[in-house]
Amino acid sequence: MPELRLNVITRDWVIMATERAKRPEEFVSLERTSLLPRLAYESGCPFCPGNESQTLKECLRLGDTGKWRVRVVPNKFPALNEEGQRIRTARGIFRSMNAVGFHEVIIEHPRHNTTTALLDQREIVDILSVYRQRYSEIKEDQRIEAIIIYKNHGESAGTSLVHPHSQLAATPVVPFQFRGRIAEAVRYFDEHGGCIFCRMVREELDLKERIIFESDHFAAFIPYAALSPFHTWIFPRRHASSFDEITDVELQDFALAVKTVLARLYHGLHNPDYNYSIRSIPTHDGNTDYFHWYLTIIPRVTKTAGFEYGSGMFINTALPEESAAFLRSVTIPE
Amino acid sequence: MPELRLNVITRDWVIMATERAKRPEEFVSLERTSLLPRLAYESGCPFCPGNESQTLKECLRLGDTGKWRVRVVPNKFPALNEEGQRIRTARGIFRSMNAVGFHEVIIEHPRHNTTTALLDQREIVDILSVYRQRYSEIKEDQRIEAIIIYKNHGESAGTSLVHPHSQLAATPVVPFQFRGRIAEAVRYFDEHGGCIFCRMVREELDLKERIIFESDHFAAFIPYAALSPFHTWIFPRRHASSFDEITDVELQDFALAVKTVLARLYHGLHNPDYNYSIRSIPTHDGNTDYFHWYLTIIPRVTKTAGFEYGSGMFINTALPEESAAFLRSVTIPE
Repeated sequence: MPELRLNVITRDWVIMATERAKRPEEFVSLERTSLLPRLAYESGCPFCPGNESQTLKECLRLGDTGKWRVRVVPNKFPALNEEGQRIRTARGIFRSMNAVGFHEVIIEHPRHNTTTALLDQREIVDILSVYRQRYSEIKEDQRIEAIIIYKNHGESAGTSLVHPHSQLAATPVVPFQFRGRIAEAVRYFDEHGGCIFCRMVREELDLKERIIFESDHFAAFIPYAALSPFHTWIFPRRHASSFDEITDVELQDFALAVKTVLARLYHGLHNPDYNYSIRSIPTHDGNTDYFHWYLTIIPRVTKTAGFEYGSGMFINTALPEESAAFLRSVTIPE
Repeated sequence: MPELRLNVITRDWVIMATERAKRPEEFVSLERTSLLPRLAYESGCPFCPGNESQTLKECLRLGDTGKWRVRVVPNKFPALNEEGQRIRTARGIFRSMNAVGFHEVIIEHPRHNTTTALLDQREIVDILSVYRQRYSEIKEDQRIEAIIIYKNHGESAGTSLVHPHSQLAATPVVPFQFRGRIAEAVRYFDEHGGCIFCRMVREELDLKERIIFESDHFAAFIPYAALSPFHTWIFPRRHASSFDEITDVELQDFALAVKTVLARLYHGLHNPDYNYSIRSIPTHDGNTDYFHWYLTIIPRVTKTAGFEYGSGMFINTALPEESAAFLRSVTIPE
């Protein structure tokens, strides 16, 4: 019998389609290949060392000019524009605003043929500390309401350049989806006097059924009502509403959590395409008692279709408990 | 300068990415082919005439057994199960329910190598009248809260069988996305004393900038804040909350609207993959003053990525006004 599960944080009902469920191994694609056949440096790649002049003016760099470790540059085709003020227009029922904001690219590593799953913890700390610094700096801009850090890995995840990179988008509006989730978090806080995210992390850590990674400061698990196979959440155990609240010590631990989860996906499922994003509270809301930042990973191993578009609900063909057990069993080569 | 647009019905902010915008013609794929090379009947296809025994027990049929026009059968791998009652379980913070409901397949035509865009208006009336009948019948089941009718056309839209078909899913819960949209519609009604959907249709018909089809009973347009290129809405002009309120006369007109829009997409963009869905009010809510049913079509000409997953917002690389002008200019061969 298929089962409906409620994600009490997102309020999504997810259908766990047991009738068409697959074993975790069935999501391993033989078509997906390792990154090894690719060159370490590609003369035509705008993100490779030596081609720095092909990107727009650097916002941030770790390391020396000729020996950088991470670079942040404006997106060449930005969805949001740094210049100007937020100006609204209204015409009948229609509302618009000029798309003021930031749209940056984080070039994660000089090497062309690597990916986060294969990096050292220290290299991932570099990337995450750059995220934190740009988050903190951009947050000061009063025109900004929300900052989303995200990564598109692989073609089906929407990437256009293969060189390892992620992106930051800072929007001048609060996405409606955030509004709904915050309202629910506030409702929980009013009723129970606590953070619903903290409670979920605590219960997942107690049960251990869906945990993939656990350390002093972080916990990674496949949510009880995961939207899709291997959909994973990484939570800081200390309550904080916004990613830039992370401390240096926590950053080390976060890098290990990210590395472990991505490496298990990489080796267990043969380098699947995926998206990840870091979700924080809107920038003007401060560090509240009710909202908790986290990182969400969505491996692109299935397709969304008309049911999802028509209802906002999801059908998941993999049981979270089985997927988590599978990932826990993956050995990460030294 | 990119522009943010608010969809006042869904409350989504959409980024119209003018910096990376494409001309409508750029979405025409040369890889996509017509359906002609496919056989009219395929011996291995469970939906082709002669293979009726390969499907589960028919729920509804138009025409005689050996000469049917449309058939409805249960999905062989149902995400929802007809038997049983809605039984809730709670364990700590986790909530589940057995997935009681209906999951049916509408086999739209006996011919293997056709598609809605190429059918006669009369044949589409058959399909839509079957939708209406199953909607009305299933709505009577008190375990059901919402009925979603949808179609996955093409591989990237998530279809697994090429024979023309659509699906109906009846869920024992109200999707959270519906809750949010209904709350907004109620808020508009309280403030203005009318239906926000009716107002949008009226304003689009006045402006004519984004209209693709217009008749006595229906209007089709690309929404001002369309989520993706060629995202199209078809609305009944008469206010009604639920698809099964449609009259026989309106059904004729709806078939013409659906045919015209899909034929323009088919001929203009070379048979793009797409999803459509019919959105109605939850079944227990009745025919309210504030909610209006409609059909939404999403051609799969772009990919969603980390930004969309991380924010719930969308980046659209095509201007709705240009896409609508392009579709209006497409000639549908006789």
